[in-house]
Amino acid sequence: MKKTVGIVGANGYTGSELIRLLAFHPHVTLSFLYSRSNSGTRISDLYPDLTTVCEQVLTDQPGEVDILFLCLPHKESQNWLAQNPVKEETLVIDLGNDFRLDGNFQNRNFIYGLPEINKKQMSGSKSIANPGCFATAIQLALLPLAEKGVLNEVFTTGITGSTGAGQSLQATTHFTWRNDNVSAYKTLTHQHVDEILQQIVLFNHKNVSLNFVPWRGDFARGIFTSSTVKTDLGLSDIYQLYQGFYAEAPFVTVSEKAIDLKQVVNTNRCVIQIEKSGNVAVIHSAIDNLLKGASGQAVQNMNIAMGWEENTGLNLKPIAF
Amino acid sequence: MKKTVGIVGANGYTGSELIRLLAFHPHVTLSFLYSRSNSGTRISDLYPDLTTVCEQVLTDQPGEVDILFLCLPHKESQNWLAQNPVKEETLVIDLGNDFRLDGNFQNRNFIYGLPEINKKQMSGSKSIANPGCFATAIQLALLPLAEKGVLNEVFTTGITGSTGAGQSLQATTHFTWRNDNVSAYKTLTHQHVDEILQQIVLFNHKNVSLNFVPWRGDFARGIFTSSTVKTDLGLSDIYQLYQGFYAEAPFVTVSEKAIDLKQVVNTNRCVIQIEKSGNVAVIHSAIDNLLKGASGQAVQNMNIAMGWEENTGLNLKPIAF
Amino acid sequence: MKKTVGIVGANGYTGSELIRLLAFHPHVTLSFLYSRSNSGTRISDLYPDLTTVCEQVLTDQPGEVDILFLCLPHKESQNWLAQNPVKEETLVIDLGNDFRLDGNFQNRNFIYGLPEINKKQMSGSKSIANPGCFATAIQLALLPLAEKGVLNEVFTTGITGSTGAGQSLQATTHFTWRNDNVSAYKTLTHQHVDEILQQIVLFNHKNVSLNFVPWRGDFARGIFTSSTVKTDLGLSDIYQLYQGFYAEAPFVTVSEKAIDLKQVVNTNRCVIQIEKSGNVAVIHSAIDNLLKGASGQAVQNMNIAMGWEENTGLNLKPIAF
Amino acid sequence: MKKTVGIVGANGYTGSELIRLLAFHPHVTLSFLYSRSNSGTRISDLYPDLTTVCEQVLTDQPGEVDILFLCLPHKESQNWLAQNPVKEETLVIDLGNDFRLDGNFQNRNFIYGLPEINKKQMSGSKSIANPGCFATAIQLALLPLAEKGVLNEVFTTGITGSTGAGQSLQATTHFTWRNDNVSAYKTLTHQHVDEILQQIVLFNHKNVSLNFVPWRGDFARGIFTSSTVKTDLGLSDIYQLYQGFYAEAPFVTVSEKAIDLKQVVNTNRCVIQIEKSGNVAVIHSAIDNLLKGASGQAVQNMNIAMGWEENTGLNLKPIAF
Repeated sequence: MKKTVGIVGANGYTGSELIRLLAFHPHVTLSFLYSRSNSGTRISDLYPDLTTVCEQVLTDQPGEVDILFLCLPHKESQNWLAQNPVKEETLVIDLGNDFRLDGNFQNRNFIYGLPEINKKQMSGSKSIANPGCFATAIQLALLPLAEKGVLNEVFTTGITGSTGAGQSLQATTHFTWRNDNVSAYKTLTHQHVDEILQQIVLFNHKNVSLNFVPWRGDFARGIFTSSTVKTDLGLSDIYQLYQGFYAEAPFVTVSEKAIDLKQVVNTNRCVIQIEKSGNVAVIHSAIDNLLKGASGQAVQNMNIAMGWEENTGLNLKPIAF
Repeated sequence: MKKTVGIVGANGYTGSELIRLLAFHPHVTLSFLYSRSNSGTRISDLYPDLTTVCEQVLTDQPGEVDILFLCLPHKESQNWLAQNPVKEETLVIDLGNDFRLDGNFQNRNFIYGLPEINKKQMSGSKSIANPGCFATAIQLALLPLAEKGVLNEVFTTGITGSTGAGQSLQATTHFTWRNDNVSAYKTLTHQHVDEILQQIVLFNHKNVSLNFVPWRGDFARGIFTSSTVKTDLGLSDIYQLYQGFYAEAPFVTVSEKAIDLKQVVNTNRCVIQIEKSGNVAVIHSAIDNLLKGASGQAVQNMNIAMGWEENTGLNLKPIAF
Repeated sequence: MKKTVGIVGANGYTGSELIRLLAFHPHVTLSFLYSRSNSGTRISDLYPDLTTVCEQVLTDQPGEVDILFLCLPHKESQNWLAQNPVKEETLVIDLGNDFRLDGNFQNRNFIYGLPEINKKQMSGSKSIANPGCFATAIQLALLPLAEKGVLNEVFTTGITGSTGAGQSLQATTHFTWRNDNVSAYKTLTHQHVDEILQQIVLFNHKNVSLNFVPWRGDFARGIFTSSTVKTDLGLSDIYQLYQGFYAEAPFVTVSEKAIDLKQVVNTNRCVIQIEKSGNVAVIHSAIDNLLKGASGQAVQNMNIAMGWEENTGLNLKPIAF
Repeated sequence: MKKTVGIVGANGYTGSELIRLLAFHPHVTLSFLYSRSNSGTRISDLYPDLTTVCEQVLTDQPGEVDILFLCLPHKESQNWLAQNPVKEETLVIDLGNDFRLDGNFQNRNFIYGLPEINKKQMSGSKSIANPGCFATAIQLALLPLAEKGVLNEVFTTGITGSTGAGQSLQATTHFTWRNDNVSAYKTLTHQHVDEILQQIVLFNHKNVSLNFVPWRGDFARGIFTSSTVKTDLGLSDIYQLYQGFYAEAPFVTVSEKAIDLKQVVNTNRCVIQIEKSGNVAVIHSAIDNLLKGASGQAVQNMNIAMGWEENTGLNLKPIAF
């Protein structure tokens, strides 16, 4: 029998991406789509691509479900759970950042949901804190080196699509401004740095500094990052390290050829490439910020937690062009 | 047991889209990927998004298969079939325009593969001529009115993404030129006009003239068309007509709300909207030129011909953003 | 001595484009930049490209000037003039649509400011109603045929950049939505149709119907239109007609080669191309909607009204790429 | 009397940009446009935006001129000069990289043409080596810190528009591939690194290492770079340093507000912003790669060498939107 799913914040980008993924997932059925601001509206009126795919009406009356996804603005997941008690046996996956740094809340203990490092811990778990988008791309680029304990200082630039800024209308998401444009934001102060370092340090066993410069790109989907580090490891050793680290990770591909952002857009995949000159290595990584960086990874985590095949519902056709 | 598939011209855009679709199709297995120019190359080296999805090597030695897709430049399908005899029981689907106007070739009789009008004829058929991209978008916009016999003169403008021009490097597909640009081409002389009219006239039972102005757009995927016609039918009658005509068409949606191109990108769907002022009606339609306009429709036709569910392998996640 | 200029609504797109043009105009000096909503703000804080070019502060206290540009939302020019009396000898150029259909207001008589037809009337005039952007592109495409009296019915599709929608944040100007997207709006009901027909009919001496389908494009600047008409005139006769009609128009180029939108972006030019098949002619035209379609034409009109060289300050470097 | 100008390689992007700039320059007249491959073709047939602006025909017969611009592929300027002797009194400005690292050639001594550091040396000079595009953006970002001698190690990421790759058709300039895409190239090995360091070290008086990761962006024009360095200087001291360093530089703006690429597109300007956290500083800079990064800077250098106002012909209207 199919498991029931509720999505809180279904009217946002990540919520609607979950609908696109779960509408064709063989083991679940959408039970309710919660939205306070758009209650009473048909989801396909907000997202016409969902016409015929999902014709449910948004509600402000959540019900009991087997699996609950929280797609709320950062810091609102706690409030929602406080006001809407959830059964102990319900799997809760939070796509916000409320439980990423500290997973203890009520009598739950949220596991940090990066499956490439926490797959075992998530199996059977009922509480998962889904990682941030930049945090996913950058951690996957750095973790194998961290496990070797060789990370000291990292210099990362990352560029993100406009969907990373959500659906609210802002000066920096106005088409006229953003088209053909590039700009920096939250230089050295992005909120994902702490999230990244908390995991990295667990592997690296010593402090790491991360100098991260995020850029806004003139495309809608995707994140591309390049991280520069010092290491005496040779390039082929590094590749061996990465291939080994991700041997069991169905959605991470380590590439010896040049990679580009669009090869992962509309997929749940992360591609990684490493280049080296002297003792300087650069690790490039690319993901779709709404999929491997948010809703796709949430479905991957659901699959793991529920004991289903990890890639169920995630064999997505890449946009490619 | 899965059916075997061969793709001729697998190195092109429509060939690679077929691979993306068929790699996860439950009833088929890719037997060979034929390319003369890229024989010996791994397909994922040409299209890195296919890494891990399909790691086959292109070959110039076709074998026997249950289903054969021809993705060749226009007019080369005939040559290929002449030089590479195919078993009578093999289903041949040609994505070129060799058999669209005249389906008789060797001892085969190619059915025009627009499933919204020829579903019955294709059931069990072994020879299908897949329609052109603009031809699909414009016919789906006009057929219900043609069936009423009210079409006389049609004025259509359509805009297409750069994938419509294929992968060859041309001045008009150079990024520097095409970015932020719009231009007209083949004004009033596009090769799809004859293809469209041949079908339309069958329904309309009298001559129709189609004045078609195609434009190049600054996006990669998709076709958007607006067709202006004169008719005394009221808007609600027209909507009723369209809803009825497409009642059994799982991939055509008739919308009373404003439509936009991106709602169908990366799907096999066509959305249609009608507006009216006085005795003038405008019918808008949108498709993904590589899917409903090419490879997606080819898979739909394969499903129909083979007796499988029409949407098998075609529940695609829209790009949406 | 330089003439003084005031810009009302200087904080909008067309207002800021006027600043970009007039900052380097040899015969004028910017006296005041009026904005009610942004009074007290430095214009270069709103438009950082104006840093060092124009560092004036927006004011809500207009002063007396020789030349006044009104860049207000449609229908607000009348209100502004009613509340802020302007000297009789001040040249007023309205970029809104308040005086395009009926130029009589107070004791002024606004001339319709399409210089290709009204250059003489504007010379020395003190009141000019600047045409709309689509109206400019479509009239320039049709006027020579109208002068021959051969226009009966016109079918036009036009696509416009996002700047046409102004700087307000709307769902249809959100980058995530608009990028790679095309959509129709105001089908058959665009407000410029009346403006176009009023002028066209003066030349054509009989009624013309204009079926106009406007589209939103995924670029920031520019308008491209294709107009389909019936005519027995041969193509070379039509070209001769157009070349003659625009012989004295420095900003209109009649091209026998294929045209594209980007060749006029960031210029005050309009390019026109004609194609013909049978008795059907298609006239393509392209302009930059903010320049020839708004602020550039306003400067051209100012030059004419003041007796300066028509192209003063308008020898702009095209964006080209 | 106007000075005569010849452009060698006039058929390329930087050559055609020079034409766009010089067509309206008050002190020069275009004497010949040289192209071997397109000899006999009208320049406006290659670049239709030049229609009516410049209708000259490309020639393979160079003549004597006062000022000669070389816009050739890297390493071909030497060959051209060897085969086509140029009078001693002709000002030669090379836009390639032949004379940037070593300016001695024949009996000429090419000055490195970054006006912000070599304005005096260029005054009256007859031989100028125009800097590279990334080299301009990165040097302008680093020079004030170098002059303080505080540079040790620099980590720079830069993104460039497709025009940086020239007009040849390549897989990475195909619209279908590049649209919505980002990728890295020449990681840590870009040819501009040596050019940058040669100048930087002159100021810094000690070695500097530059780890440079160039990216390809999905826009046509512009370069945006972010450089991360360690320094104990406070942010306000750094700003004071930069303001002082560029006090006499009309085309460099040091901004305390967030900058974005598009504010300099279609201008000869460079904007720089600095941010700091702890002892880490990030310097952002943006230019139009074809103008301040190539042809605009070449005109600026010509003005300086000829003793004209530095901004003559360079008061360009920004694209802004």
